[in-house]
Amino acid sequence: MIKLHDYELSGSCHKVRLLLGFLQTEYEKRPVDFVSKQHKSAEYLGINPFGELPILEDGDLTLRDAQAILVYLASKYDAGRLWYPVDPQAQGRIQQWLSTGGGEIMNASAARLVKGLNYPLDLERLHAGAHRAFAILDTHLKDRNFLELGRPTIADIACFPYAALAWEGGIDISGYHNMIAWIGRVKNLPNFTGMPGM
Amino acid sequence: MIKLHDYELSGSCHKVRLLLGFLQTEYEKRPVDFVSKQHKSAEYLGINPFGELPILEDGDLTLRDAQAILVYLASKYDAGRLWYPVDPQAQGRIQQWLSTGGGEIMNASAARLVKGLNYPLDLERLHAGAHRAFAILDTHLKDRNFLELGRPTIADIACFPYAALAWEGGIDISGYHNMIAWIGRVKNLPNFTGMPGM
Repeated sequence: MIKLHDYELSGSCHKVRLLLGFLQTEYEKRPVDFVSKQHKSAEYLGINPFGELPILEDGDLTLRDAQAILVYLASKYDAGRLWYPVDPQAQGRIQQWLSTGGGEIMNASAARLVKGLNYPLDLERLHAGAHRAFAILDTHLKDRNFLELGRPTIADIACFPYAALAWEGGIDISGYHNMIAWIGRVKNLPNFTGMPGM
Repeated sequence: MIKLHDYELSGSCHKVRLLLGFLQTEYEKRPVDFVSKQHKSAEYLGINPFGELPILEDGDLTLRDAQAILVYLASKYDAGRLWYPVDPQAQGRIQQWLSTGGGEIMNASAARLVKGLNYPLDLERLHAGAHRAFAILDTHLKDRNFLELGRPTIADIACFPYAALAWEGGIDISGYHNMIAWIGRVKNLPNFTGMPGM
């Protein structure tokens, strides 16, 4: 059985929960106490030296990084290969948004840690970074229903949670009409998994 | 013919040059004047709204992000699929380091921009981030010749340039013996492409 080391309020963990939900793949959650920094304990640093969640275990495979876990699960457990097709051009297009979802959009994640858990980070700079990413996402979605291929892929999953949770970091997304419509489309997909704050 | 919008001194562009060299795939360089910020011009923001290099064009496909370009090229132009195998577990393992190469290791890239081009960034913080990533890389390489699969893949390419160029950002890597040995192994691969500073 797949094991997900998981923190309920983590948008990165939610990426994995979303895909497993869409694929209707069974898994077992191993809750990690993020607030008391259990993911920075010696036990967890032994599994993932980066000290981050999520972590996936499947048989003797252990994977860190939400995007790596999405690539693995969508390659292994989606028989129709809809979420991460094998075509080189499709994989390249999707990878652009895996990088953005694990990169620029994480400014919105960090802003949420400042607002919710008082992390000592520069909120103004994080807001500027998040707005820059969301403005690009919004423009990209002007004439598209989903980020690539005209249908939902792991590109959308990698970018969705911290867009949908941005308000918790004090980021006003009300001007990003195309992004808001896209958030709605993702939420309306069959077998969508919700989380607190969405 | 593949077109690479390229800046000679960019480690991110070098990732793409490295793979194209290893694959012995012909391409055409379109030099971009990074110092005068040509990549932030209206023309380039039209191609890549993130205002970053490299950008690849291949027929009617345009891709931004070094990692996305590596995934595409290694899927399309490596008939033996050695650099990015189709196996789900291999792709997941490699993706971990694509995320790290485009993520934590970019602290070393930013430090280089501070030292070389006087970018107004917090050098101390960048050094700390780079050292954190390199220490993990070094430990990971303790009993491995390459990052995953026991042989060179795009995981190595994504992490290599800013490790090999770290000294230009004032980062002392002399204590990372396993990482230094790995840098040497990558440099000794057939059809390795060098760049100034390496």
